[in-house]
Amino acid sequence: MNRTALITGSTSGIGLGIATEFAKAKYNIVFNGLEPNGAEIAANIGKQYGIETMFFPANMMKPDEIKDMVTKSTEKFGKIDVLICNAGIQHVAPIDEFPDDKWNAIIAINLTSAYHLTKAVWPKMKEQKFGRIINIASAHGLVASEFKSAYVTSKHGIVGLTKVLGLEGAPYNITANAICPGYVKTPLVEKQIADQAKAHNMSEGDVVSKVMLYKQAVKQFVSVETLGQLALFLASDNANTITGTAMPVDGGWNAQ
Amino acid sequence: MNRTALITGSTSGIGLGIATEFAKAKYNIVFNGLEPNGAEIAANIGKQYGIETMFFPANMMKPDEIKDMVTKSTEKFGKIDVLICNAGIQHVAPIDEFPDDKWNAIIAINLTSAYHLTKAVWPKMKEQKFGRIINIASAHGLVASEFKSAYVTSKHGIVGLTKVLGLEGAPYNITANAICPGYVKTPLVEKQIADQAKAHNMSEGDVVSKVMLYKQAVKQFVSVETLGQLALFLASDNANTITGTAMPVDGGWNAQ
Amino acid sequence: MNRTALITGSTSGIGLGIATEFAKAKYNIVFNGLEPNGAEIAANIGKQYGIETMFFPANMMKPDEIKDMVTKSTEKFGKIDVLICNAGIQHVAPIDEFPDDKWNAIIAINLTSAYHLTKAVWPKMKEQKFGRIINIASAHGLVASEFKSAYVTSKHGIVGLTKVLGLEGAPYNITANAICPGYVKTPLVEKQIADQAKAHNMSEGDVVSKVMLYKQAVKQFVSVETLGQLALFLASDNANTITGTAMPVDGGWNAQ
Amino acid sequence: MNRTALITGSTSGIGLGIATEFAKAKYNIVFNGLEPNGAEIAANIGKQYGIETMFFPANMMKPDEIKDMVTKSTEKFGKIDVLICNAGIQHVAPIDEFPDDKWNAIIAINLTSAYHLTKAVWPKMKEQKFGRIINIASAHGLVASEFKSAYVTSKHGIVGLTKVLGLEGAPYNITANAICPGYVKTPLVEKQIADQAKAHNMSEGDVVSKVMLYKQAVKQFVSVETLGQLALFLASDNANTITGTAMPVDGGWNAQ
Repeated sequence: MNRTALITGSTSGIGLGIATEFAKAKYNIVFNGLEPNGAEIAANIGKQYGIETMFFPANMMKPDEIKDMVTKSTEKFGKIDVLICNAGIQHVAPIDEFPDDKWNAIIAINLTSAYHLTKAVWPKMKEQKFGRIINIASAHGLVASEFKSAYVTSKHGIVGLTKVLGLEGAPYNITANAICPGYVKTPLVEKQIADQAKAHNMSEGDVVSKVMLYKQAVKQFVSVETLGQLALFLASDNANTITGTAMPVDGGWNAQ
Repeated sequence: MNRTALITGSTSGIGLGIATEFAKAKYNIVFNGLEPNGAEIAANIGKQYGIETMFFPANMMKPDEIKDMVTKSTEKFGKIDVLICNAGIQHVAPIDEFPDDKWNAIIAINLTSAYHLTKAVWPKMKEQKFGRIINIASAHGLVASEFKSAYVTSKHGIVGLTKVLGLEGAPYNITANAICPGYVKTPLVEKQIADQAKAHNMSEGDVVSKVMLYKQAVKQFVSVETLGQLALFLASDNANTITGTAMPVDGGWNAQ
Repeated sequence: MNRTALITGSTSGIGLGIATEFAKAKYNIVFNGLEPNGAEIAANIGKQYGIETMFFPANMMKPDEIKDMVTKSTEKFGKIDVLICNAGIQHVAPIDEFPDDKWNAIIAINLTSAYHLTKAVWPKMKEQKFGRIINIASAHGLVASEFKSAYVTSKHGIVGLTKVLGLEGAPYNITANAICPGYVKTPLVEKQIADQAKAHNMSEGDVVSKVMLYKQAVKQFVSVETLGQLALFLASDNANTITGTAMPVDGGWNAQ
Repeated sequence: MNRTALITGSTSGIGLGIATEFAKAKYNIVFNGLEPNGAEIAANIGKQYGIETMFFPANMMKPDEIKDMVTKSTEKFGKIDVLICNAGIQHVAPIDEFPDDKWNAIIAINLTSAYHLTKAVWPKMKEQKFGRIINIASAHGLVASEFKSAYVTSKHGIVGLTKVLGLEGAPYNITANAICPGYVKTPLVEKQIADQAKAHNMSEGDVVSKVMLYKQAVKQFVSVETLGQLALFLASDNANTITGTAMPVDGGWNAQ
């Protein structure tokens, strides 16, 4: 029987890239995202790779929608084997101008949703003595950049949550790990290029070379395939002793 | 002119201990806390050490009360030189039984309040080119323990926030640092002893020796004087190049 | 053309386990180790998996033997694509009784040999714009245990070296990463069980459950397959943006 | 009775700055360094601050000279209360051009000397149930820069050693901590400015602003007073629960 992965924010960007790697590996996939054509995206991946899919537009700020998504997908697939918390938003502003609603939304979506998702999938994982929780944090889960107080806070927070879950999951063969990407060329990053250009008063080209990839020694964006393959490895049976970690995939950013 | 320190959660425990060290060093102190006799506690410290004090029972879950406290104390003292975000709560439960309202309260009090406090004091600090933000995180800001998902998340989050503030404050001689204590004998910890005894089904004596101080190589509780003196050093002019750090005061917990 | 991996300390334990995974993946392998029948071990793996192998008994304390091994294997295979520095020794004693010759040997074998090996393979990697350096550090590359001053020092040191190499290799598609295993059941660990039993004055059974795996939340030894598969992933083309990292494979040891 | 601090590399730079702070605080000081007028420097500090001093030109590459220095100063002062391992050298070169003799000297002086020093002072510290070991590591004890393979390795190594000593010292009220400075304007750094200018083919002015302090958010060199005062705090009785840590004093370098 195929395993099932629930991946939030998977109708575009990193989430879609990871979903594609899991689809190739014959996982059934529960898609989630805000794209209006999310159902279609999910169905197409299902058809292309011969797997079963579902799609839920659950809003990560709404615990009820999160629980409902997990309940319904568990009804269909019997259990969620792999939970990948990937949905995330960003906002760039100096601390004294940071909008409170942005802070609250970033904490809710990037951080608290992972708590609700985990809580919802945990009992079945515990029961079946298998579970893999993979949180897509960020290089900003380990170090900071200016003007990103909410984002860095949320990503450090999820790294902390990951460690707790690693410890609590140990007796049940549930592992929890955070992947910490540097810059991946996604719609979110394209928006960040524009935002930072404004915040730093620079051209977008300069933002890429001097701000974004400046902190990466490897002067290439991280590919979604790299993230997907690392996630697949962490999801495997053999990765049972890898837990509570925060793995940088950041072109050397955290090494300096 | 004396400097002014605003210290949240300062009418008991770690906060009161830190306030006492700052009072000895002739800082004026803005007290905050939920003790019904908070105003009296503040006044007594003021009298004892010959400093000026204020007291606000501002609820750390209410941004308006936070802002109001900063506004009023800034009116009186001209500026807040040192902000010490110390207020915090804890709740111990397995992830699948963790109460959502406890999660929300811990994130709000331990984490988001520091955002609101910083935002409120920042413009004056920036203007006067001096500010010291000291967040009382925890050893759990760096590593985890089971059954403490919200607490560990909040404390990792505040370590992240501290790094951002360190970077954003650099041009203005505003530093931000997190102090990461191990176990300090305070009312919060005494409650934790009881809570963990229940969670682990152990005697309270065993919780102290086998659970709490087990992770500390130094088999003594951290003293509030140690925390207060480290905070005083971080608040000094000479600590201007110490910023964005998370300093363990944990009896070797994080070293192993 | 198959890629070539040079793996030190590969005639037993972790090194042999990793070599086996690389052999399955059709890498040619340069074996190294002190087993008297090392050549035979190498030849057997070669036959079993249909790959080419070499064997060198190079002593990791002797830079000349290291250079000679790299020179000769480069002559045969054209280049070393993947260098896995795995050879290591351990000694357990309190700091004031630690034998100086053990300190020197541990620093030389666990740490300085990686410098000589890297220096030797680097020019070809640079020239061909591909290289993967994988240092088998330890959970002790990130945290400490008592009575292991030389070992912990050497493993932290190699984590530092890995970061430098990650940065220096970035322009040439050379990555460097450290894998940080917890306890793997190998001859070295079996010896440690005996040594620690003596140092702690405990039974060997108690050393395993209370000392060794105590720090792991996952109460199982790490398997060599897990390490081998992670190393294979790090060696792949797609892992080009993963560099300068130290990846725990330690059952949650570093998470707490 | 005054306490005694032995500080290596204390006849110039950071070591001399730290020694001066300890002299102000009425410690007796054992000086060490290669300055030909070291004895005079020590005597002058002694006279200026009314403390007793000794001077030894012990070569940090020679264990016998290290032991002899500790033996003789222990004979005079009864014990060493505080050991500050500060002596260090640097060499900047790409990994494939790094001179082996420089690697060996850096490992011996920056790292192995701390092992010999600690081993020599440990028995008395253990006996008197008080000891403070303070290793002057570097921001490079936590992260890397290119072309500094030996230095970064040695500094990560000493951070590891510090953790072990923190754990082993815990039962005896011996603490061990590493201070991790960013750039301090010392003779060593002035030499680094010149060396890096050559390595990077840049002007010395550009090395300071674009290379050295680039990684610090705070665009000022760290002052020796800051380091001395932090060391004094770590040496105090009240710092008994601070151990096994690595404290950045780096203008936010490690926060990003």
